[in-house]
Amino acid sequence: MSAISVVMGSKSDWPTVKKGCKILEQFGVDYEKNVISAHRMPNEMFAFAQNAVEKGTKVIIACAGGAAHLPGMIAANTPLPVIGIPGQTKALGGMDSLLSIVQMPAGIPVATQAIGVAGAKNAALLALQILGINDPTIQQQILDYRKQMHDQSIESGAHLD
Amino acid sequence: MSAISVVMGSKSDWPTVKKGCKILEQFGVDYEKNVISAHRMPNEMFAFAQNAVEKGTKVIIACAGGAAHLPGMIAANTPLPVIGIPGQTKALGGMDSLLSIVQMPAGIPVATQAIGVAGAKNAALLALQILGINDPTIQQQILDYRKQMHDQSIESGAHLD
Amino acid sequence: MSAISVVMGSKSDWPTVKKGCKILEQFGVDYEKNVISAHRMPNEMFAFAQNAVEKGTKVIIACAGGAAHLPGMIAANTPLPVIGIPGQTKALGGMDSLLSIVQMPAGIPVATQAIGVAGAKNAALLALQILGINDPTIQQQILDYRKQMHDQSIESGAHLD
Amino acid sequence: MSAISVVMGSKSDWPTVKKGCKILEQFGVDYEKNVISAHRMPNEMFAFAQNAVEKGTKVIIACAGGAAHLPGMIAANTPLPVIGIPGQTKALGGMDSLLSIVQMPAGIPVATQAIGVAGAKNAALLALQILGINDPTIQQQILDYRKQMHDQSIESGAHLD
Amino acid sequence: MSAISVVMGSKSDWPTVKKGCKILEQFGVDYEKNVISAHRMPNEMFAFAQNAVEKGTKVIIACAGGAAHLPGMIAANTPLPVIGIPGQTKALGGMDSLLSIVQMPAGIPVATQAIGVAGAKNAALLALQILGINDPTIQQQILDYRKQMHDQSIESGAHLD
Amino acid sequence: MSAISVVMGSKSDWPTVKKGCKILEQFGVDYEKNVISAHRMPNEMFAFAQNAVEKGTKVIIACAGGAAHLPGMIAANTPLPVIGIPGQTKALGGMDSLLSIVQMPAGIPVATQAIGVAGAKNAALLALQILGINDPTIQQQILDYRKQMHDQSIESGAHLD
Amino acid sequence: MSAISVVMGSKSDWPTVKKGCKILEQFGVDYEKNVISAHRMPNEMFAFAQNAVEKGTKVIIACAGGAAHLPGMIAANTPLPVIGIPGQTKALGGMDSLLSIVQMPAGIPVATQAIGVAGAKNAALLALQILGINDPTIQQQILDYRKQMHDQSIESGAHLD
Amino acid sequence: MSAISVVMGSKSDWPTVKKGCKILEQFGVDYEKNVISAHRMPNEMFAFAQNAVEKGTKVIIACAGGAAHLPGMIAANTPLPVIGIPGQTKALGGMDSLLSIVQMPAGIPVATQAIGVAGAKNAALLALQILGINDPTIQQQILDYRKQMHDQSIESGAHLD
Repeated sequence: MSAISVVMGSKSDWPTVKKGCKILEQFGVDYEKNVISAHRMPNEMFAFAQNAVEKGTKVIIACAGGAAHLPGMIAANTPLPVIGIPGQTKALGGMDSLLSIVQMPAGIPVATQAIGVAGAKNAALLALQILGINDPTIQQQILDYRKQMHDQSIESGAHLD
Repeated sequence: MSAISVVMGSKSDWPTVKKGCKILEQFGVDYEKNVISAHRMPNEMFAFAQNAVEKGTKVIIACAGGAAHLPGMIAANTPLPVIGIPGQTKALGGMDSLLSIVQMPAGIPVATQAIGVAGAKNAALLALQILGINDPTIQQQILDYRKQMHDQSIESGAHLD
Repeated sequence: MSAISVVMGSKSDWPTVKKGCKILEQFGVDYEKNVISAHRMPNEMFAFAQNAVEKGTKVIIACAGGAAHLPGMIAANTPLPVIGIPGQTKALGGMDSLLSIVQMPAGIPVATQAIGVAGAKNAALLALQILGINDPTIQQQILDYRKQMHDQSIESGAHLD
Repeated sequence: MSAISVVMGSKSDWPTVKKGCKILEQFGVDYEKNVISAHRMPNEMFAFAQNAVEKGTKVIIACAGGAAHLPGMIAANTPLPVIGIPGQTKALGGMDSLLSIVQMPAGIPVATQAIGVAGAKNAALLALQILGINDPTIQQQILDYRKQMHDQSIESGAHLD
Repeated sequence: MSAISVVMGSKSDWPTVKKGCKILEQFGVDYEKNVISAHRMPNEMFAFAQNAVEKGTKVIIACAGGAAHLPGMIAANTPLPVIGIPGQTKALGGMDSLLSIVQMPAGIPVATQAIGVAGAKNAALLALQILGINDPTIQQQILDYRKQMHDQSIESGAHLD
Repeated sequence: MSAISVVMGSKSDWPTVKKGCKILEQFGVDYEKNVISAHRMPNEMFAFAQNAVEKGTKVIIACAGGAAHLPGMIAANTPLPVIGIPGQTKALGGMDSLLSIVQMPAGIPVATQAIGVAGAKNAALLALQILGINDPTIQQQILDYRKQMHDQSIESGAHLD
Repeated sequence: MSAISVVMGSKSDWPTVKKGCKILEQFGVDYEKNVISAHRMPNEMFAFAQNAVEKGTKVIIACAGGAAHLPGMIAANTPLPVIGIPGQTKALGGMDSLLSIVQMPAGIPVATQAIGVAGAKNAALLALQILGINDPTIQQQILDYRKQMHDQSIESGAHLD
Repeated sequence: MSAISVVMGSKSDWPTVKKGCKILEQFGVDYEKNVISAHRMPNEMFAFAQNAVEKGTKVIIACAGGAAHLPGMIAANTPLPVIGIPGQTKALGGMDSLLSIVQMPAGIPVATQAIGVAGAKNAALLALQILGINDPTIQQQILDYRKQMHDQSIESGAHLD
């Protein structure tokens, strides 16, 4: 049983999503990962979403591109928070993915992140921040992670040449 | 049993969709209409799509706005042609609806129409044109309908003042 | 002490944000609400964000329009999950608000919702879903809320005329 | 006589369109292909469209980029369903092609697909789905094709590393 | 025989186009006006364009909205200069009309103007400027018209209160 | 004295503009070419525009990118027709150039072409079409050029493999 | 002699620009205001810009809409800082004005503000902040103005109902 | 003490920002440069902005990309003029950065420049133009710099081949 479940619409999303999974690993938080295509595996998608609570999942991360229906359709089938990562796309840069994920109608929210790699990393961090509400260890890890980013940013300023 | 089934994500789409249904009535072609929300009625949506062939449906028309997942998710659950109408939206004019419907990944097409009322009318006409491939009466009605539009266009030019 | 804290950049956001607050009230979940302008009250914004954990806040909802810096700057100052509502804008419909909120750099996530009222409602529901992970009563209320939406959607389909 | 006729505005569209034609071949469905430029071969375009019914064509697929007038102008000259593929463009990614094809006025629908290769594949599949309404063999092939995509998607999930 | 021929895709374009026609009248230059719908009157459109030289037309002005194919398709059928006016549209403001008209492929130019009324006026003025190359009277009228705009602009500055 | 004068805002526009100039050469029509930067050479720009009629210029072609003020500012200083070529840009693809050129206020038209190379070629062809109104040789050359494009398009269709 | 000179492309910009001028008046800083159309009054525009230093102007504010060339062309003719206000437009909301003003080529900056009224107010405030660098009274007024906004924002939060 | 202070949200902005700093060096005007991330170093950002006047800074230049909050948040914490450079971004070209910087609410202006390198150069030039108001040497250097650009532009026109 993993508290965080990560799904993506296609294996081609993995290089992006992986950047977020590395953060989960760095935090030592267990997670599951799967390819679940909204359009090619609709029944599996519904089963996945409808069983998530029972399986002990607490937060779901879903990445998809183009007419990106995966995050919203999972969200429609579970009361768990769903975090959406809009995949960058070749023709429209990911504006299509972004609007398909973020413009959800009232009733079914998706916690949408930035397009591409930044979004994948932030999806992981948001999942951890959500778990951190009731887990002081994770919340402290978030603070430590930020301290590290903070110090690296300052450090980087010393090397502008 | 109706050859054409018209669904919309919300009752608020009806004033738009109705303009297409009037054309179906004008052609004397029977149709069903229903509100099926992808996000509020996901199980009904899948049941609807998965039963459509068996029920004798031949073409499905689906209208939705914003993160408009209805047409694509129905298409993922039936081998029948699905025609999508992007609803006009308040914030982004319908660009969100359009991209959510048209930018489908390879494998599951949606026959996307224009945003709003023009799209609703054209969805009906496309459904009729599809039926018309094997139904000479409907194909002739299409030709008659076009003749009428043609004559009205010409006539309208006489009244520019 | 309220688990949910709702802030907005300007009183002019209140008619939008209010639609989400009504849902919080409907669920009987206590919340705080405040105007905190990122640009006019920067010190108060930082103090608010930096004190949120200590005050017992668990989830923050922030609404802003245009160059909407409020959600992201609050997120940068707290390890709590921050949910962002992009305000609809007169000139660009809210595309400016959306991109200013969602396109956060890696490290500091904002759980971005749809532009305008749908986003305000979904921000409240997402906050509740997050609390619901560890609160079976709230999770059940989410399921009840969805059941109600579901029934209303079905019911609405009987009145297409 | 081929049931499906594929046209493109320029030979430069062929690498995209070809991806759809391969699916037609894979299904064993006969098709014609031609370069017909709306702007360089207007008379041929009209002759093509106006003769399509008589020739036994059932569905037309048309690809064009930029100010992409080919699908809509063919549609205006035949009662057959016309499927449009917006070509990806260098400057605007294909947003120009998409809007030029999808935003048809009421009266003349084009069944618009996604920009680029995904759209080319889906144009072929939609044509097959349309033929499949009255051809159980093709409809079964669609179901088989989807089963294959489904299995490949599941299989791909086992190789995330 | 009129040197300038003004066409529009629909009578609904007339309130826009009329603003340009008034300028033609103000200059005392004869013009023809007609509704010619690219999609509803394709044969008339081609006949119009293909006969224009012979009829003595020198410049064509064409207005259309949405998937605005009229200016480009006329241009494809005549060696005369064609000036395009993108109609303002409800959903997308006229961005669809603009891209459908301006993004012509190499070989067939359309002299595209601004969206809506400013474009209609400028289409008329450009037509006059083109005729003015070989007609000193018209060229002088252009200069006079500009002098008048110039003086009105200066005058208007005295009334800022 | 050349009937056509071609200007560009920067030498970096030359590779694009050159494609149009080659067409002018192919037609045997004399032209001038110059770099005139609206922002770096404003006085030269005004002198150029204000002297153009007197020098015998009949049509001006102007290319610029980004905040592309060159075509519009030249147009404001001459009664001659000005054709604008929006340069493709790195960040926004040329949408900035296009809107800066095409959205002229009522009074001063610019005959805007497509972004980039297609626009450069069409600017040349439009200039020739304008000259062709009163020059049967050029008008015939346009027809011949189109015939050649037509034949090449047809020919290209034989080589789809 | 006024330190700040405010110009606008058309009298129709005045209701927007006025909101900024009121702030200048509130600060007791003298300013000039004029209608100067880039396209209708090009010579006056150049004279205005080229004489500004000599007249004692220190900062120029310029508002224009659509293909908004006024701020950039003034900037090209003076070494003084020029602040640009993109006017809101009917068709495209002001995206055209914004890109025409902000996307200046390297060499000639325009200090671009937000579209519409917020931009008009901020143009005035930026002009004051620039003067405030060397004028402690104005800099203090800026701080007072901000204190007032700050207090009003806080106060407004007490009235959410 | 430097009159100009240049900050950027990430070291990855340096290759862009550097192009502006070279101009400052070319003018012999002293400047400071630092990485200050709005989201990773919020306290340092506020300290930087709140101490700027006291330190003798006169103009601040800030570059950031995506949800680019740095320029606006600095501006909210200092009465000094702040010049913003929108970084070019991978997914959306920099449209996200531009809107996040330019669409500031009334009260806190940012002097926004073009996306990317042109913006970085112009930010430096604008800072110099602002200092030049009270520094005749710098104002003369601006004029000399422009003279040089002018001459280079003219010179470049002689080498179109």
